[in-house]
Amino acid sequence: MIITIRKSAPKLEVEKLIKELESYGVKVTHVVGENHDVLGLVGDTARLDENRIQANDAVRKVTRIAAPYKLANRLFHPDDSVVDVAGIKIGGRENIVIIGGPCSVEGKEQIESIAHSVKEAGAVMLRGGAYKPRTSPYAFQGLQTEGILDLVEARRLTGLPIVSELMSADKLEEFEQYVDLIQIGARNMQNFELLKALGKSKKPILLKRGLANTIEEWIMSAEYIMAAGNPNVILCERGIRTFEKYTRNTLDLSVIPVIKEKTHLPIVIDPSHATGDYRYVEAMSLAAIAAGADGLIIEVHNNPECAWSDGDQSLKPEKFARLVEKCRAIAHVVGREIK
Amino acid sequence: MIITIRKSAPKLEVEKLIKELESYGVKVTHVVGENHDVLGLVGDTARLDENRIQANDAVRKVTRIAAPYKLANRLFHPDDSVVDVAGIKIGGRENIVIIGGPCSVEGKEQIESIAHSVKEAGAVMLRGGAYKPRTSPYAFQGLQTEGILDLVEARRLTGLPIVSELMSADKLEEFEQYVDLIQIGARNMQNFELLKALGKSKKPILLKRGLANTIEEWIMSAEYIMAAGNPNVILCERGIRTFEKYTRNTLDLSVIPVIKEKTHLPIVIDPSHATGDYRYVEAMSLAAIAAGADGLIIEVHNNPECAWSDGDQSLKPEKFARLVEKCRAIAHVVGREIK
Amino acid sequence: MIITIRKSAPKLEVEKLIKELESYGVKVTHVVGENHDVLGLVGDTARLDENRIQANDAVRKVTRIAAPYKLANRLFHPDDSVVDVAGIKIGGRENIVIIGGPCSVEGKEQIESIAHSVKEAGAVMLRGGAYKPRTSPYAFQGLQTEGILDLVEARRLTGLPIVSELMSADKLEEFEQYVDLIQIGARNMQNFELLKALGKSKKPILLKRGLANTIEEWIMSAEYIMAAGNPNVILCERGIRTFEKYTRNTLDLSVIPVIKEKTHLPIVIDPSHATGDYRYVEAMSLAAIAAGADGLIIEVHNNPECAWSDGDQSLKPEKFARLVEKCRAIAHVVGREIK
Amino acid sequence: MIITIRKSAPKLEVEKLIKELESYGVKVTHVVGENHDVLGLVGDTARLDENRIQANDAVRKVTRIAAPYKLANRLFHPDDSVVDVAGIKIGGRENIVIIGGPCSVEGKEQIESIAHSVKEAGAVMLRGGAYKPRTSPYAFQGLQTEGILDLVEARRLTGLPIVSELMSADKLEEFEQYVDLIQIGARNMQNFELLKALGKSKKPILLKRGLANTIEEWIMSAEYIMAAGNPNVILCERGIRTFEKYTRNTLDLSVIPVIKEKTHLPIVIDPSHATGDYRYVEAMSLAAIAAGADGLIIEVHNNPECAWSDGDQSLKPEKFARLVEKCRAIAHVVGREIK
Repeated sequence: MIITIRKSAPKLEVEKLIKELESYGVKVTHVVGENHDVLGLVGDTARLDENRIQANDAVRKVTRIAAPYKLANRLFHPDDSVVDVAGIKIGGRENIVIIGGPCSVEGKEQIESIAHSVKEAGAVMLRGGAYKPRTSPYAFQGLQTEGILDLVEARRLTGLPIVSELMSADKLEEFEQYVDLIQIGARNMQNFELLKALGKSKKPILLKRGLANTIEEWIMSAEYIMAAGNPNVILCERGIRTFEKYTRNTLDLSVIPVIKEKTHLPIVIDPSHATGDYRYVEAMSLAAIAAGADGLIIEVHNNPECAWSDGDQSLKPEKFARLVEKCRAIAHVVGREIK
Repeated sequence: MIITIRKSAPKLEVEKLIKELESYGVKVTHVVGENHDVLGLVGDTARLDENRIQANDAVRKVTRIAAPYKLANRLFHPDDSVVDVAGIKIGGRENIVIIGGPCSVEGKEQIESIAHSVKEAGAVMLRGGAYKPRTSPYAFQGLQTEGILDLVEARRLTGLPIVSELMSADKLEEFEQYVDLIQIGARNMQNFELLKALGKSKKPILLKRGLANTIEEWIMSAEYIMAAGNPNVILCERGIRTFEKYTRNTLDLSVIPVIKEKTHLPIVIDPSHATGDYRYVEAMSLAAIAAGADGLIIEVHNNPECAWSDGDQSLKPEKFARLVEKCRAIAHVVGREIK
Repeated sequence: MIITIRKSAPKLEVEKLIKELESYGVKVTHVVGENHDVLGLVGDTARLDENRIQANDAVRKVTRIAAPYKLANRLFHPDDSVVDVAGIKIGGRENIVIIGGPCSVEGKEQIESIAHSVKEAGAVMLRGGAYKPRTSPYAFQGLQTEGILDLVEARRLTGLPIVSELMSADKLEEFEQYVDLIQIGARNMQNFELLKALGKSKKPILLKRGLANTIEEWIMSAEYIMAAGNPNVILCERGIRTFEKYTRNTLDLSVIPVIKEKTHLPIVIDPSHATGDYRYVEAMSLAAIAAGADGLIIEVHNNPECAWSDGDQSLKPEKFARLVEKCRAIAHVVGREIK
Repeated sequence: MIITIRKSAPKLEVEKLIKELESYGVKVTHVVGENHDVLGLVGDTARLDENRIQANDAVRKVTRIAAPYKLANRLFHPDDSVVDVAGIKIGGRENIVIIGGPCSVEGKEQIESIAHSVKEAGAVMLRGGAYKPRTSPYAFQGLQTEGILDLVEARRLTGLPIVSELMSADKLEEFEQYVDLIQIGARNMQNFELLKALGKSKKPILLKRGLANTIEEWIMSAEYIMAAGNPNVILCERGIRTFEKYTRNTLDLSVIPVIKEKTHLPIVIDPSHATGDYRYVEAMSLAAIAAGADGLIIEVHNNPECAWSDGDQSLKPEKFARLVEKCRAIAHVVGREIK
C-alpha cells in the first residue's frame, strides 16, 4: 500500500500516522519528495482500512498495490481449480461444459422436451429458472418449488445435472436438496448475506457477474463464499451495462484471460443474456471458446415465441445443436474437448 | 406499444400475431409502410411480454410507450405523497428533512455523541449502519443487533427517529420493532425477495438507487414494495457508477426533477456516498436543495480519522452545522423550510 | 510515481530499471516486501512514460501520484483565474455569467429577436451555433459563415459578446475576427490538432467536457491549449454518457467543487444539452449556481417547435427570464451576483 | 416513426402537427388510446427532425423505427462490401487480414526491422503511427512526416501496404500520396469536418469506434464518409470505455455479428488498444476470428520496454508469430483463410 502525504501536513501528524500503521505490523518506508511525501507499506496490508487512512487530513491519496483477495488469488494457489458438479468436472484442462435450457421452467412437458433436445445436441447440464428475478412486479415470477421439481424429474429422465437460480437464503435448503449447481444472478452478486449463507453450503455455486461490477468486486464476492467455507465457485460472465443499445448488455470476453491470470477458478460465459438476441449467440459462443472459456450456458427453448420470459434470446434446439457442433471444432483447435 | 414488422414476414404470420395480441384485450392498428409495417397497440399493454413478442420471427422491434409503473406513476396519482416517519413528514411542500449520522454505529458513546451533535446542528433524524454491506469479507461488518440497540438508546436521549440499513428479510422483524425508517442499500435495490417482504411491512422505506440502475428500474423497485401493500416509499439517489475516477460515484441530481415529474414520491439525496469525499459534500448538498430535493442524508462523524468505515466522506459536526445553515438559506429561496 | 515489482523479477533486471529511472533525474527508493517490491519515485516524474515502464517484464504495476497537469494545476497557481471575454469577466468572485441563445442560428431575424430577449432577461452573452456537429450527414449542418455574420449583427444591436462553436482549425481565422468566446464542443475535446491551434490564439476558449472523458482528461485538454500559449480557458460541463435513458446525458455537477479544488480555471454549466429536456433545465441551473458554478450557458428559442435543431431542450424567453430571476436569488445566498 | 401524443393536447394542435408531417410526404395513421394517442408515420422519415417534433407541447415521445443510415445499411445493399487496400482485399469471404506493427514509428531501423518480422509472421499490412493523439501535451507526439516516409521505405522493402492515423484534414494530401489505408482514431470518430474531407478522397478508410460511441453513431460516421463520395470504409472496434479497471477498455466483440447484420462493411478488431495488456491480446484475437472478424490490427514491437508509446500492449515478434499461427487454425474452422 502506498500513502501520499500532503506537503503541508504537520511533521508530528505524519509521525503519529506512521506509528499507528506500524502497530498493525506493516513496515513503513518514508520517501521525501518535492511536492509531497510518500509512505510505502509492506506486509499484511489487507487488515488496513483505506477509507479510514484517507480520512486523515495529512493524507492525499491511498493506493492499494496488493490484490484484496486471497483464497481466489492465483498467486497463492497456482493450479487451476476443478469444480465437480454431480460428476461433471469444470475448469483446468477438463472438457468444456455446455449447459442448455430455457430461461424459465414453464411446466413438466416443456422442460422434459427441452432436456432431451439439449442432451442430444451435446449439453451435459440442464438449466432452467424456477425463481425468476423480474424488473416488474407484474411479470411472471417463476413456477418456484413446482419448477424445481419439474427440473428434478427432467434430470431423472435424462441424467443431466440441473442448474437453477437461488434468490434468497430461505430457499437454500430446497436447493441443497434438489439442485446440482446453484446459480447466483447478477442482481444478487453483492447480496452479501446470501453469499455468506452459500459459504456454509457444500454445493457448487455459479456466480454471475453483476451488471456494473468490476472484475475485482466479482472476485471479492467469490472470496465471500470461499472465506465462509465453500471453495466450489464457478464464475459466469453475462454482460455488463454500458451505453450501447443494439445489444442488451456488452459481453466482456476479456474477463476470460483476466480471470485465468488473477484467479484459479473456472469461468463460464452466458452469451444469451449478454446479447439479448438469439442471432448473436452463436458468434459469441465461438468467441468464448476460442478465448479459453471453461463452459457456456445458453438459453434453448422449443418454442421461443411462446416462452414466458426472454424468448427473444432463446435458440431453437436445432440451432443450438449446430452451435455445439461448431464449438466442438473451435475447442479442438485450442486444445480442449466438448464431451 | 408499437410493434415493427419485417417486410419479409408472411401475411398469415402477421395476422396470427394480431389475433393473439387482441386476445389480451388491446386494440391493434396496422400501418403499412414501404420497408416495414407497424402495429400500434392501445389498451392495457402492461400485461404483454415484450420479450415474448420480440421472439416472433415476424417482429423486428417492440417499443413500449406507456411507463411500466402504475402505483408510483404521477399520471394516476397527481398529488405529491407525503411519508410520515415517526412524526417527521417528508415530501410535498413539507419541511426539507436533514438526516445525519455516522456510516457505522461503533458503540454507544460514539452514536450518542454524534446524535447530540447532529440534532444541535439541525438534523431531524439520525442515521447509522448496524449491518454493513462491504465488498470485502475481511472488512468490518457492523455491530448488528448491538448497533441497532445503541441507535435506539440514542433516539431515547435525543428524540431523533432512526434510519438504518436492512440487508436481508430475516432481520425485518428486528427492524420493524426498533427502526423508524428502513434503508435499502444500492446493492439490494433489485433484491426482489427483500422488496416483496418490505411490501408486507407498514414501516416507511428509504430505497436507494442501484449503482447502475436506470431511473425506470428504480421506480419499478418502488413499485414492487407498493404493489405488495406498502405505499410508504422514499427514493434516495446516492450516485451512479461511471468511468469518472475523481469522485467515487457520479451524483445524478437530474433525478430530482425527473422523479418529481414521473412519480409522486419524495426524493432524498445522499451526497456523502456519491462523492466519497467530505470536501465535495457541501456543494452537492446545496445543489440538491436548490434542485428541489425533499431531504438530505449526510455522513457525520466526531472523529472521521478513526471511523470504522468510510471516514473519508464524513463531515465533522461543526462542518455539518455550517452546511445545514447554508442549506437553510437555499431552501428559503426555493420556497421550502428546514425545520 | 510508484512502481510495483514482481517478486520473480531477476535482481539484475530491477537494478537496470532503477538506473534507467535515475538517469531521468528522479530519486528512487526501493522498498522490499513479501509478495512484491515497491519503487518510490520522487522528482519530475512527468517526463517518465508509464506505458514504457509497464512494458518491462519485471514491473507489475505503475501508479502515478502527482497530477499530470501543471499550468492548470491549482497547486502551482493558487489564485482563481479570471478570464476576460470582451469586457465580461468570468471566474473568481466575479459576477456569475449567464449566456443564452439558440442551439443554431437560423437567420438574422431569429437571432436578433432572441438576442434582445435574452439580454432583457439578464444574459450578458449570446450563444448561437453556426457550424453544427450533427450525428447524421443528412441533418442541418448550420448556416456557417452566414450564421457568424448574423451573430455579429446581433452583437452590434445588443452589445452582447458572442459565443459560437468552432469545429476545425481552418475556420479559426474567421472566429478570431468575429467571435468573442470560441466554443469547443464535446466531440472535439480530444481533437489535439485543434487544441494546439487554439493555443496560438489569444481568444478565450470555452472547452466542453467530452461525453466520456474523465475530469483529468478534460484538464489535460485545457493544458494543451495553455501549454501552447493561451491561458484563457473556461471549462464547460455538458453531461456525460451513462446508461440512464430518461435524460439525454447525465449532468455531473460534482465537477464544480472538483474543478475548483484541482484547477484555478472558471467553470460553466450547460444544463440544456445535459438533460436534453427543457423541463429539467431550471432545476439544474439553480443547482449549478448553488454548487458554485461561474456561469451558465442555456438554450433559448423564441419558437422551440420550429427550431432547426435541439428544439426540445430550448426554453422560451419568458421561462428563461424566470429562471434567471431565481438564479439571482440563489447566487445571492452563495455570496455571488448575477449582473 | 412513432409519435406519442399527450392526452391533454388540444385537438387543433394535433391536427396542425399531422398536416405539417404530411407536408413532408409521409403517411400518418392516428391511433386513439386511453392514456395517449399514437401517430404512426411511414415513408421517408429520415428528413424529419426528431428534436423539433419533440419540442411540440402536444408530443410526449418520438420513437424512430427505421435505421437512420442508408448507404451503409445492409437492407439496401445485401451483399458484403469488399474493400481493396493496395491489392489486399478485406471483407466478404476474402482472406482474413492481419495487420501488425508498432504503435509509433520511432525511426527507420525500428520500423524496417518490425516490418520484416510481421511479414514473416504472416501479416499482410504494416501499421505504424506517425501522428500520435496523446492525452498529454508533454508526451511524444510522433515523428510526423518523417515517420510517414520511414513507413514508405519499409513498404518498399517488404511490399506490405501501410496503415497510419490521420489526425487533421490539412495532412490529407500527404496521406493520399503515401499511405494505403488511412486510419481515423477513436477520438476523431465524430470529427465531422474530417469525415467530410475523407469522403472526397478515394483512399480506403479504417474508421475506429469512439470510446463512448454507440454502434449506431459509428455507422453514422461511416455514412458521413460514404455520403460524401467514398464507399471504401472499414470499421474497427478498439474497446469502449466502461467502469472496469483491470483492462484499459472493454473490447466489445458482439459488434462483429451486429455490424454484419446491420451493414455490409468489413469489420476489423484491435485487441491491443482494447485490453491495453499484451498478455490478453492472443485470447481476444482468437475470439475475434471465431466471431467472424474480417481482420485484426495488432501492435508488435521488437523491444516493447523501449517503445516510445504503449509498450505494455505490444507483442514481441515471436509471440505475434505464434498468435497468427493459432488464428490461422481458428479461421479455418469458421471457413476463412489467413493468407
